[in-house]
Amino acid sequence: MIAAFQGEHGAYSEQAVLDHYQGQTTTLPCESFDRVFATVTGGEVDLGFIPVENSLAGSIHRNYDLLLQHNLVVTGEHYLRVSHCLISLPGVALGDIRRVISHPQALAQCENSLRALPGVSIEPVYDTAGSVKMIKELGDPTVAAVASRRAAEIYGLPVLRADFEDNPENYTRFQIIARQAVDPGDNAKTSIVFALDNRPSALFRAISVFALRQIDLTKMESRPLVGKPWEYYFYIDFAGSTADPNVQHALANLEEYSTFLRVLGSYPRYDPAVL
Amino acid sequence: MIAAFQGEHGAYSEQAVLDHYQGQTTTLPCESFDRVFATVTGGEVDLGFIPVENSLAGSIHRNYDLLLQHNLVVTGEHYLRVSHCLISLPGVALGDIRRVISHPQALAQCENSLRALPGVSIEPVYDTAGSVKMIKELGDPTVAAVASRRAAEIYGLPVLRADFEDNPENYTRFQIIARQAVDPGDNAKTSIVFALDNRPSALFRAISVFALRQIDLTKMESRPLVGKPWEYYFYIDFAGSTADPNVQHALANLEEYSTFLRVLGSYPRYDPAVL
Repeated sequence: MIAAFQGEHGAYSEQAVLDHYQGQTTTLPCESFDRVFATVTGGEVDLGFIPVENSLAGSIHRNYDLLLQHNLVVTGEHYLRVSHCLISLPGVALGDIRRVISHPQALAQCENSLRALPGVSIEPVYDTAGSVKMIKELGDPTVAAVASRRAAEIYGLPVLRADFEDNPENYTRFQIIARQAVDPGDNAKTSIVFALDNRPSALFRAISVFALRQIDLTKMESRPLVGKPWEYYFYIDFAGSTADPNVQHALANLEEYSTFLRVLGSYPRYDPAVL
Repeated sequence: MIAAFQGEHGAYSEQAVLDHYQGQTTTLPCESFDRVFATVTGGEVDLGFIPVENSLAGSIHRNYDLLLQHNLVVTGEHYLRVSHCLISLPGVALGDIRRVISHPQALAQCENSLRALPGVSIEPVYDTAGSVKMIKELGDPTVAAVASRRAAEIYGLPVLRADFEDNPENYTRFQIIARQAVDPGDNAKTSIVFALDNRPSALFRAISVFALRQIDLTKMESRPLVGKPWEYYFYIDFAGSTADPNVQHALANLEEYSTFLRVLGSYPRYDPAVL
Protein backbone atom coordinates (compact mmCIF):
# COMPACT_ATOMS: atom_id res chain seq x y z
CA MET A 1 0.00 0.00 0.00
CA ILE A 2 1.25 3.50 -0.83
CA ALA A 3 0.21 6.61 1.14
CA ALA A 4 0.88 10.20 0.03
CA PHE A 5 1.66 12.98 2.54
CA GLN A 6 2.64 16.65 2.32
CA GLY A 7 6.26 17.45 3.12
CA GLU A 8 9.69 15.86 3.00
CA HIS A 9 10.64 12.55 4.63
CA GLY A 10 10.58 13.19 8.38
CA ALA A 11 7.40 15.30 8.27
CA TYR A 12 4.79 14.84 11.01
CA SER A 13 2.30 13.64 8.37
CA GLU A 14 4.67 10.80 7.45
CA GLN A 15 4.95 9.92 11.15
CA ALA A 16 1.14 9.71 11.29
CA VAL A 17 1.10 7.28 8.33
CA LEU A 18 3.79 5.06 9.87
CA ASP A 19 2.10 5.05 13.30
CA HIS A 20 -1.35 4.35 11.86
CA TYR A 21 -0.22 1.33 9.82
CA GLN A 22 2.63 0.26 12.14
CA GLY A 23 5.11 0.83 9.34
CA GLN A 24 3.37 -1.51 6.84
CA THR A 25 3.07 1.22 4.17
CA THR A 26 5.24 2.90 1.56
CA THR A 27 5.13 6.71 1.80
CA LEU A 28 5.19 9.26 -1.05
CA PRO A 29 6.32 12.81 -0.12
CA CYS A 30 4.38 15.60 -1.93
CA GLU A 31 5.29 19.29 -2.11
CA SER A 32 1.72 20.51 -1.47
CA PHE A 33 -1.70 19.41 -0.19
CA ASP A 34 -3.00 19.90 -3.75
CA ARG A 35 -0.49 17.32 -4.92
CA VAL A 36 -1.56 14.83 -2.20
CA PHE A 37 -5.16 15.07 -3.43
CA ALA A 38 -4.02 14.80 -7.08
CA THR A 39 -1.95 11.64 -6.50
CA VAL A 40 -4.91 9.93 -4.78
CA THR A 41 -7.38 11.07 -7.46
CA GLY A 42 -5.04 9.98 -10.26
CA GLY A 43 -4.45 6.53 -8.76
CA GLU A 44 -0.68 6.97 -8.21
CA VAL A 45 -1.20 6.07 -4.55
CA ASP A 46 -3.84 4.19 -2.53
CA LEU A 47 -4.55 6.92 -0.02
CA GLY A 48 -3.51 10.31 1.34
CA PHE A 49 -3.00 11.56 4.91
CA ILE A 50 -4.10 15.17 5.40
CA PRO A 51 -3.89 17.16 8.64
CA VAL A 52 -7.27 18.83 9.27
CA GLU A 53 -6.92 20.26 12.76
CA ASN A 54 -4.36 21.02 15.43
CA SER A 55 -5.35 21.37 19.07
CA LEU A 56 -3.31 24.58 19.48
CA ALA A 57 -3.39 26.32 16.11
CA GLY A 58 -6.85 25.30 14.84
CA SER A 59 -8.08 23.96 11.53
CA ILE A 60 -6.04 23.60 8.36
CA HIS A 61 -8.60 25.28 6.12
CA ARG A 62 -6.88 24.56 2.85
CA ASN A 63 -7.65 20.86 3.30
CA TYR A 64 -11.33 21.55 4.01
CA ASP A 65 -11.49 23.46 0.72
CA LEU A 66 -9.66 20.68 -1.15
CA LEU A 67 -12.02 17.99 0.23
CA LEU A 68 -14.85 19.88 -1.46
CA GLN A 69 -12.99 20.32 -4.75
CA HIS A 70 -12.14 16.62 -5.13
CA ASN A 71 -14.35 13.59 -5.51
CA LEU A 72 -12.64 11.51 -2.80
CA VAL A 73 -13.98 9.91 0.38
CA VAL A 74 -12.75 10.10 3.96
CA THR A 75 -11.90 6.55 5.06
CA GLY A 76 -10.20 7.07 8.40
CA GLU A 77 -8.71 9.41 10.98
CA HIS A 78 -5.57 9.50 13.11
CA TYR A 79 -4.42 11.60 16.07
CA LEU A 80 -0.71 12.36 16.41
CA ARG A 81 0.95 13.87 19.50
CA VAL A 82 3.18 16.64 18.09
CA SER A 83 6.38 17.58 19.90
CA HIS A 84 8.60 20.15 18.20
CA CYS A 85 12.38 20.50 18.41
CA LEU A 86 14.53 23.54 17.70
CA ILE A 87 17.21 22.14 15.38
CA SER A 88 20.50 23.83 14.39
CA LEU A 89 23.83 23.14 12.72
CA PRO A 90 26.38 21.33 14.93
CA GLY A 91 28.20 23.40 17.56
CA VAL A 92 25.66 26.25 17.59
CA ALA A 93 24.49 27.86 20.87
CA LEU A 94 21.01 29.29 21.45
CA GLY A 95 22.41 32.83 21.53
CA ASP A 96 23.86 32.44 18.01
CA ILE A 97 20.44 32.01 16.39
CA ARG A 98 19.16 35.01 14.39
CA ARG A 99 16.49 33.39 12.20
CA VAL A 100 14.14 30.44 12.69
CA ILE A 101 12.39 28.81 9.74
CA SER A 102 9.58 26.22 9.60
CA HIS A 103 6.05 25.57 8.39
CA PRO A 104 3.67 28.37 9.50
CA GLN A 105 1.61 25.90 11.63
CA ALA A 106 4.71 24.76 13.53
CA LEU A 107 5.81 28.37 14.05
CA ALA A 108 2.29 29.19 15.34
CA GLN A 109 2.50 26.31 17.83
CA CYS A 110 5.84 27.62 19.19
CA GLU A 111 4.88 31.29 19.21
CA ASN A 112 5.71 31.99 22.87
CA SER A 113 8.93 29.94 22.81
CA LEU A 114 10.05 31.88 19.72
CA ARG A 115 9.16 35.24 21.22
CA ALA A 116 11.38 34.39 24.20
CA LEU A 117 14.42 34.29 21.87
CA PRO A 118 15.61 37.92 21.72
CA GLY A 119 16.31 39.49 18.30
CA VAL A 120 15.30 36.40 16.33
CA SER A 121 13.21 36.74 13.17
CA ILE A 122 10.88 33.96 12.04
CA GLU A 123 10.27 32.94 8.45
CA PRO A 124 7.61 30.58 7.11
CA VAL A 125 8.69 27.86 4.66
CA TYR A 126 6.68 25.04 3.04
CA ASP A 127 7.46 22.16 5.42
CA THR A 128 8.86 21.31 8.87
CA ALA A 129 11.23 18.54 7.72
CA GLY A 130 12.01 20.67 4.64
CA SER A 131 13.19 23.48 6.94
CA VAL A 132 15.78 21.09 8.46
CA LYS A 133 16.97 20.16 4.96
CA MET A 134 17.21 23.88 4.15
CA ILE A 135 19.36 24.85 7.15
CA LYS A 136 21.70 21.95 6.33
CA GLU A 137 22.02 23.14 2.71
CA LEU A 138 22.37 26.81 3.72
CA GLY A 139 25.18 26.05 6.17
CA ASP A 140 24.54 29.33 8.01
CA PRO A 141 24.98 28.75 11.80
CA THR A 142 22.62 31.66 12.63
CA VAL A 143 19.61 29.89 11.05
CA ALA A 144 17.63 27.21 12.96
CA ALA A 145 14.59 25.07 12.10
CA VAL A 146 11.51 23.80 13.99
CA ALA A 147 10.65 20.16 13.22
CA SER A 148 10.38 16.65 14.68
CA ARG A 149 13.19 14.74 16.38
CA ARG A 150 12.93 12.25 13.51
CA ALA A 151 13.66 15.04 10.98
CA ALA A 152 16.79 15.99 12.97
CA GLU A 153 17.91 12.34 12.87
CA ILE A 154 17.21 11.96 9.12
CA TYR A 155 19.38 15.02 8.32
CA GLY A 156 21.95 14.26 11.04
CA LEU A 157 21.58 17.56 12.90
CA PRO A 158 21.47 18.23 16.67
CA VAL A 159 18.39 19.10 18.72
CA LEU A 160 19.07 22.44 20.47
CA ARG A 161 15.78 22.44 22.44
CA ALA A 162 13.21 19.64 22.75
CA ASP A 163 9.53 20.19 23.73
CA PHE A 164 9.67 23.59 22.04
CA GLU A 165 5.85 23.87 21.58
CA ASP A 166 3.97 26.34 23.80
CA ASN A 167 1.66 23.74 25.30
CA PRO A 168 2.20 19.98 25.70
CA GLU A 169 -1.47 19.30 24.79
CA ASN A 170 -0.46 19.50 21.15
CA TYR A 171 -2.19 16.99 18.87
CA THR A 172 -2.87 16.99 15.16
CA ARG A 173 -5.88 15.19 13.73
CA PHE A 174 -5.43 13.64 10.28
CA GLN A 175 -8.05 12.40 7.86
CA ILE A 176 -7.33 9.60 5.41
CA ILE A 177 -8.60 10.15 1.87
CA ALA A 178 -9.14 7.47 -0.78
CA ARG A 179 -11.11 6.76 -3.95
CA GLN A 180 -13.31 4.01 -2.44
CA ALA A 181 -15.44 4.06 0.71
CA VAL A 182 -14.69 1.59 3.54
CA ASP A 183 -16.85 -0.35 6.00
CA PRO A 184 -16.61 1.91 9.07
CA GLY A 185 -17.59 -0.79 11.57
CA ASP A 186 -19.59 -0.26 14.78
CA ASN A 187 -17.61 2.60 16.34
CA ALA A 188 -17.81 5.06 13.45
CA LYS A 189 -17.65 8.75 12.69
CA THR A 190 -19.05 10.54 9.65
CA SER A 191 -17.89 13.79 8.00
CA ILE A 192 -20.27 15.94 5.95
CA VAL A 193 -20.33 19.41 4.37
CA PHE A 194 -23.45 21.49 3.70
CA ALA A 195 -24.61 25.00 2.85
CA LEU A 196 -27.70 26.86 4.07
CA ASP A 197 -29.93 29.67 2.89
CA ASN A 198 -28.94 32.90 4.60
CA ARG A 199 -32.07 33.18 6.80
CA PRO A 200 -32.79 33.34 10.53
CA SER A 201 -32.53 30.06 12.47
CA ALA A 202 -31.12 28.18 9.45
CA LEU A 203 -28.16 26.87 11.43
CA PHE A 204 -30.36 26.01 14.41
CA ARG A 205 -32.66 23.91 12.21
CA ALA A 206 -29.66 22.20 10.59
CA ILE A 207 -28.12 21.24 13.94
CA SER A 208 -31.52 20.16 15.30
CA VAL A 209 -31.58 17.16 12.91
CA PHE A 210 -28.69 15.72 14.93
CA ALA A 211 -29.64 16.88 18.45
CA LEU A 212 -33.21 15.59 18.16
CA ARG A 213 -31.86 12.14 17.23
CA GLN A 214 -29.15 12.13 19.95
CA ILE A 215 -26.37 12.14 17.38
CA ASP A 216 -23.26 13.68 18.96
CA LEU A 217 -21.43 16.38 16.95
CA THR A 218 -17.67 16.14 17.49
CA LYS A 219 -16.54 19.09 15.33
CA MET A 220 -17.99 21.98 13.37
CA GLU A 221 -16.16 24.34 11.05
CA SER A 222 -17.36 27.04 8.65
CA ARG A 223 -15.65 28.21 5.45
CA PRO A 224 -16.66 31.08 3.17
CA LEU A 225 -18.67 30.27 0.06
CA VAL A 226 -16.54 31.84 -2.70
CA GLY A 227 -18.57 34.33 -4.76
CA LYS A 228 -21.28 34.64 -2.07
CA PRO A 229 -19.90 36.95 0.62
CA TRP A 230 -20.94 36.05 4.17
CA GLU A 231 -22.47 32.70 3.21
CA TYR A 232 -20.70 29.59 4.44
CA TYR A 233 -20.05 25.93 3.96
CA PHE A 234 -20.44 24.09 7.26
CA TYR A 235 -18.26 21.03 7.88
CA ILE A 236 -19.59 18.72 10.59
CA ASP A 237 -18.21 15.49 12.05
CA PHE A 238 -20.57 13.33 14.10
CA ALA A 239 -20.62 9.96 15.86
CA GLY A 240 -22.25 7.21 13.80
CA SER A 241 -22.18 5.84 10.27
CA THR A 242 -24.39 6.28 7.21
CA ALA A 243 -25.30 2.57 7.56
CA ASP A 244 -27.34 3.52 10.67
CA PRO A 245 -31.04 4.33 9.85
CA ASN A 246 -31.05 7.04 12.55
CA VAL A 247 -28.18 8.80 10.71
CA GLN A 248 -29.92 8.27 7.36
CA HIS A 249 -33.04 10.00 8.70
CA ALA A 250 -30.98 12.89 10.06
CA LEU A 251 -29.25 13.38 6.69
CA ALA A 252 -32.56 13.17 4.76
CA ASN A 253 -33.91 15.81 7.13
CA LEU A 254 -30.82 17.99 6.69
CA GLU A 255 -31.17 17.74 2.91
CA GLU A 256 -34.60 19.40 3.21
CA TYR A 257 -33.09 22.35 5.09
CA SER A 258 -29.88 22.81 3.10
CA THR A 259 -29.03 24.16 -0.35
CA PHE A 260 -26.13 21.72 -0.69
CA LEU A 261 -25.16 18.53 1.14
CA ARG A 262 -22.34 16.06 0.59
CA VAL A 263 -21.30 13.13 2.75
CA LEU A 264 -17.50 13.04 2.76
CA GLY A 265 -17.39 9.57 4.32
CA SER A 266 -18.01 7.26 7.29
CA TYR A 267 -14.93 5.72 8.88
CA PRO A 268 -13.71 3.90 12.02
CA ARG A 269 -13.33 6.26 14.98
CA TYR A 270 -9.73 6.52 16.19
CA ASP A 271 -9.41 5.31 19.77
CA PRO A 272 -9.53 8.47 21.91
CA ALA A 273 -7.88 6.59 24.80
CA VAL A 274 -4.53 7.55 23.31
CA LEU A 275 -5.17 11.24 24.02
CA MET B 1 -8.71 60.84 16.87
CA ILE B 2 -5.93 58.32 16.29
CA ALA B 3 -6.54 54.79 14.92
CA ALA B 4 -3.94 52.00 14.89
CA PHE B 5 -3.78 49.45 12.05
CA GLN B 6 -1.47 46.56 11.11
CA GLY B 7 0.89 47.19 8.21
CA GLU B 8 2.66 50.04 6.46
CA HIS B 9 1.01 53.18 5.08
CA GLY B 10 -1.02 52.04 2.07
CA ALA B 11 -2.28 48.85 3.76
CA TYR B 12 -5.91 47.80 3.24
CA SER B 13 -6.53 48.26 6.96
CA GLU B 14 -5.51 51.92 6.68
CA GLN B 15 -7.87 52.29 3.72
CA ALA B 16 -10.68 50.91 5.91
CA VAL B 17 -9.93 53.51 8.63
CA LEU B 18 -9.90 56.38 6.11
CA ASP B 19 -13.12 55.21 4.42
CA HIS B 20 -14.92 54.65 7.72
CA TYR B 21 -14.16 58.11 9.08
CA GLN B 22 -14.01 59.89 5.71
CA GLY B 23 -10.41 60.83 6.33
CA GLN B 24 -11.08 62.58 9.68
CA THR B 25 -8.58 60.38 11.57
CA THR B 26 -4.85 60.12 12.10
CA THR B 27 -3.50 56.61 11.43
CA LEU B 28 -0.74 54.77 13.28
CA PRO B 29 0.96 51.88 11.39
CA CYS B 30 1.83 48.84 13.58
CA GLU B 31 4.05 45.90 12.64
CA SER B 32 1.72 43.25 14.10
CA PHE B 33 -1.85 42.68 15.29
CA ASP B 34 -0.43 42.23 18.81
CA ARG B 35 0.96 45.75 18.59
CA VAL B 36 -2.43 47.16 17.45
CA PHE B 37 -4.07 45.66 20.56
CA ALA B 38 -1.22 46.90 22.78
CA THR B 39 -1.44 50.51 21.51
CA VAL B 40 -5.20 50.59 22.18
CA THR B 41 -4.85 48.96 25.61
CA GLY B 42 -2.00 51.28 26.57
CA GLY B 43 -3.90 54.43 25.54
CA GLU B 44 -1.44 55.48 22.79
CA VAL B 45 -4.36 55.54 20.33
CA ASP B 46 -8.16 55.86 20.59
CA LEU B 47 -9.01 52.74 18.63
CA GLY B 48 -7.74 49.93 16.46
CA PHE B 49 -8.98 48.48 13.16
CA ILE B 50 -8.57 44.72 12.94
CA PRO B 51 -9.55 42.53 9.97
CA VAL B 52 -11.57 39.55 11.25
CA GLU B 53 -12.81 37.90 8.07
CA ASN B 54 -12.31 37.87 4.31
CA SER B 55 -15.04 36.62 2.00
CA LEU B 56 -12.56 34.50 -0.01
CA ALA B 57 -9.89 33.40 2.46
CA GLY B 58 -11.96 33.09 5.66
CA SER B 59 -11.39 34.28 9.20
CA ILE B 60 -8.24 35.88 10.54
CA HIS B 61 -7.97 33.65 13.60
CA ARG B 62 -5.14 35.49 15.25
CA ASN B 63 -7.44 38.43 15.89
CA TYR B 64 -10.13 36.23 17.44
CA ASP B 65 -7.51 34.90 19.85
CA LEU B 66 -6.27 38.43 20.63
CA LEU B 67 -9.81 39.69 21.33
CA LEU B 68 -9.99 37.09 24.08
CA GLN B 69 -6.56 37.93 25.51
CA HIS B 70 -7.27 41.67 25.84
CA ASN B 71 -9.80 43.54 27.88
CA LEU B 72 -11.09 45.73 25.02
CA VAL B 73 -14.56 46.17 23.55
CA VAL B 74 -15.76 45.97 19.95
CA THR B 75 -17.29 49.37 19.08
CA GLY B 76 -17.89 49.09 15.34
CA GLU B 77 -17.43 47.22 12.09
CA HIS B 78 -16.49 48.12 8.51
CA TYR B 79 -16.58 46.24 5.20
CA LEU B 80 -13.92 47.02 2.59
CA ARG B 81 -14.00 45.89 -1.05
CA VAL B 82 -10.49 44.51 -1.64
CA SER B 83 -8.99 44.71 -5.12
CA HIS B 84 -5.39 43.54 -5.48
CA CYS B 85 -2.77 44.75 -7.96
CA LEU B 86 0.38 42.99 -9.13
CA ILE B 87 3.04 45.68 -8.69
CA SER B 88 6.57 45.66 -10.13
CA LEU B 89 9.58 47.89 -10.72
CA PRO B 90 9.28 50.24 -13.73
CA GLY B 91 9.81 48.74 -17.22
CA VAL B 92 9.21 45.13 -16.11
CA ALA B 93 7.07 42.74 -18.24
CA LEU B 94 4.92 39.94 -16.80
CA GLY B 95 7.29 37.30 -18.24
CA ASP B 96 10.24 38.76 -16.28
CA ILE B 97 8.68 37.98 -12.87
CA ARG B 98 10.22 35.03 -10.99
CA ARG B 99 9.04 35.72 -7.42
CA VAL B 100 5.93 37.33 -5.95
CA ILE B 101 5.82 38.52 -2.34
CA SER B 102 2.91 39.72 -0.19
CA HIS B 103 0.93 39.04 2.98
CA PRO B 104 -0.23 35.38 3.13
CA GLN B 105 -3.92 36.44 3.05
CA ALA B 106 -3.40 38.48 -0.14
CA LEU B 107 -1.48 35.58 -1.73
CA ALA B 108 -4.34 33.22 -0.76
CA GLN B 109 -6.85 35.54 -2.43
CA CYS B 110 -4.84 35.55 -5.69
CA GLU B 111 -4.00 31.85 -5.66
CA ASN B 112 -5.33 31.02 -9.14
CA SER B 113 -3.91 34.20 -10.73
CA LEU B 114 -0.50 33.37 -9.24
CA ARG B 115 -0.63 29.75 -10.38
CA ALA B 116 -1.24 30.99 -13.95
CA LEU B 117 2.21 32.67 -13.92
CA PRO B 118 4.59 29.89 -15.04
CA GLY B 119 7.76 29.26 -12.99
CA VAL B 120 6.97 31.91 -10.39
CA SER B 121 7.57 31.21 -6.70
CA ILE B 122 5.52 32.94 -4.01
CA GLU B 123 6.83 34.12 -0.66
CA PRO B 124 4.83 35.35 2.32
CA VAL B 125 5.91 38.59 4.00
CA TYR B 126 4.36 40.54 6.88
CA ASP B 127 2.29 43.11 4.97
CA THR B 128 0.84 43.96 1.54
CA ALA B 129 2.02 47.58 1.43
CA GLY B 130 5.28 46.43 3.07
CA SER B 131 5.86 44.05 0.16
CA VAL B 132 5.76 47.05 -2.25
CA LYS B 133 8.28 48.89 -0.06
CA MET B 134 10.45 45.74 -0.10
CA ILE B 135 10.55 45.32 -3.90
CA LYS B 136 11.46 49.01 -4.24
CA GLU B 137 14.34 48.59 -1.76
CA LEU B 138 15.46 45.27 -3.30
CA GLY B 139 15.64 46.78 -6.81
CA ASP B 140 15.42 43.29 -8.34
CA PRO B 141 13.23 43.43 -11.50
CA THR B 142 12.27 39.73 -11.18
CA VAL B 143 10.43 40.31 -7.87
CA ALA B 144 6.85 41.65 -7.79
CA ALA B 145 4.39 42.44 -4.98
CA VAL B 146 0.63 42.06 -4.43
CA ALA B 147 -0.99 45.09 -2.79
CA SER B 148 -3.49 47.93 -3.26
CA ARG B 149 -3.36 50.58 -6.01
CA ARG B 150 -2.85 53.11 -3.23
CA ALA B 151 0.31 51.26 -2.08
CA ALA B 152 1.66 51.39 -5.66
CA GLU B 153 1.00 55.16 -5.72
CA ILE B 154 2.60 55.76 -2.30
CA TYR B 155 5.82 54.02 -3.40
CA GLY B 156 5.65 55.36 -7.00
CA LEU B 157 5.65 51.95 -8.70
CA PRO B 158 3.60 50.78 -11.72
CA VAL B 159 0.60 48.42 -11.61
CA LEU B 160 1.39 45.46 -13.88
CA ARG B 161 -2.06 43.82 -13.47
CA ALA B 162 -5.16 45.24 -11.75
CA ASP B 163 -8.05 43.09 -10.40
CA PHE B 164 -5.54 40.33 -9.65
CA GLU B 165 -7.78 38.58 -7.03
CA ASP B 166 -9.39 35.27 -8.03
CA ASN B 167 -12.95 36.44 -7.45
CA PRO B 168 -14.35 40.00 -7.55
CA GLU B 169 -16.62 39.25 -4.55
CA ASN B 170 -13.67 39.99 -2.31
CA TYR B 171 -14.52 41.88 0.88
CA THR B 172 -12.79 42.15 4.22
CA ARG B 173 -14.74 42.75 7.41
CA PHE B 174 -13.02 44.82 10.09
CA GLN B 175 -13.90 45.25 13.73
CA ILE B 176 -13.09 48.41 15.64
CA ILE B 177 -11.63 47.92 19.11
CA ALA B 178 -11.54 50.50 21.91
CA ARG B 179 -11.28 50.81 25.68
CA GLN B 180 -14.84 52.17 26.19
CA ALA B 181 -18.17 50.80 24.96
CA VAL B 182 -20.34 52.92 22.63
CA ASP B 183 -24.09 53.44 22.25
CA PRO B 184 -24.82 51.03 19.38
CA GLY B 185 -28.11 52.71 18.35
CA ASP B 186 -31.17 50.94 16.94
CA ASN B 187 -29.56 48.95 14.12
CA ALA B 188 -26.97 47.08 16.18
CA LYS B 189 -24.89 43.92 16.16
CA THR B 190 -23.31 42.18 19.14
CA SER B 191 -20.21 39.95 19.29
CA ILE B 192 -19.77 37.35 22.03
CA VAL B 193 -17.46 34.43 22.82
CA PHE B 194 -18.37 31.38 24.91
CA ALA B 195 -17.23 27.86 25.77
CA LEU B 196 -19.32 24.74 26.37
CA ASP B 197 -19.01 21.48 28.23
CA ASN B 198 -18.03 18.73 25.80
CA ARG B 199 -21.38 16.87 25.91
CA PRO B 200 -24.04 15.90 23.35
CA SER B 201 -26.37 18.67 22.14
CA ALA B 202 -24.36 21.37 23.96
CA LEU B 203 -24.02 23.50 20.81
CA PHE B 204 -27.68 22.94 19.90
CA ARG B 205 -28.81 24.22 23.30
CA ALA B 206 -26.48 27.22 23.03
CA ILE B 207 -27.81 28.21 19.62
CA SER B 208 -31.40 27.60 20.72
CA VAL B 209 -31.24 30.62 23.06
CA PHE B 210 -31.02 32.82 19.97
CA ALA B 211 -33.29 30.87 17.59
CA LEU B 212 -36.13 30.61 20.13
CA ARG B 213 -36.04 34.41 20.54
CA GLN B 214 -35.80 35.13 16.80
CA ILE B 215 -32.33 36.62 17.15
CA ASP B 216 -30.49 36.29 13.84
CA LEU B 217 -26.93 34.89 13.96
CA THR B 218 -24.73 36.56 11.33
CA LYS B 219 -21.48 34.68 11.94
CA MET B 220 -20.13 31.76 13.94
CA GLU B 221 -16.53 30.72 14.35
CA SER B 222 -14.81 28.14 16.56
CA ARG B 223 -11.25 28.25 17.93
CA PRO B 224 -9.43 25.56 19.91
CA LEU B 225 -9.28 25.94 23.67
CA VAL B 226 -5.54 25.77 24.37
CA GLY B 227 -4.70 22.99 26.84
CA LYS B 228 -8.05 21.22 26.30
CA PRO B 229 -7.74 19.31 23.01
CA TRP B 230 -10.95 19.19 20.95
CA GLU B 231 -12.81 21.72 23.10
CA TYR B 232 -13.60 25.08 21.53
CA TYR B 233 -14.35 28.73 22.04
CA PHE B 234 -17.34 29.75 19.92
CA TYR B 235 -17.44 33.30 18.57
CA ILE B 236 -20.92 34.46 17.54
CA ASP B 237 -22.14 37.72 16.03
CA PHE B 238 -25.87 38.40 16.13
CA ALA B 239 -28.33 41.16 15.25
CA GLY B 240 -29.38 43.29 18.23
CA SER B 241 -27.79 45.06 21.18
CA THR B 242 -27.32 44.21 24.85
CA ALA B 243 -29.68 47.13 25.64
CA ASP B 244 -32.57 44.97 24.27
CA PRO B 245 -34.29 42.85 27.00
CA ASN B 246 -34.78 40.02 24.48
CA VAL B 247 -30.99 39.88 23.98
CA GLN B 248 -30.44 40.13 27.75
CA HIS B 249 -32.67 37.09 28.29
CA ALA B 250 -30.87 35.14 25.58
CA LEU B 251 -27.48 35.88 27.15
CA ALA B 252 -28.71 35.00 30.67
CA ASN B 253 -29.96 31.71 29.24
CA LEU B 254 -26.66 31.10 27.41
CA GLU B 255 -24.77 31.73 30.66
CA GLU B 256 -26.65 28.77 32.21
CA TYR B 257 -25.50 26.48 29.42
CA SER B 258 -21.91 27.65 29.02
CA THR B 259 -18.73 27.26 31.05
CA PHE B 260 -17.51 30.71 29.95
CA LEU B 261 -19.24 33.72 28.38
CA ARG B 262 -17.95 37.18 27.48
CA VAL B 263 -19.73 39.93 25.57
CA LEU B 264 -17.14 41.56 23.31
CA GLY B 265 -19.41 44.50 22.49
CA SER B 266 -22.55 45.90 20.85
CA TYR B 267 -21.98 48.32 17.97
CA PRO B 268 -23.75 49.99 15.03
CA ARG B 269 -24.28 47.59 12.13
CA TYR B 270 -22.42 48.66 8.99
CA ASP B 271 -24.83 49.35 6.14
CA PRO B 272 -24.89 46.12 4.12
CA ALA B 273 -26.26 48.02 1.09
CA VAL B 274 -22.65 48.76 0.10
CA LEU B 275 -22.02 45.06 -0.60
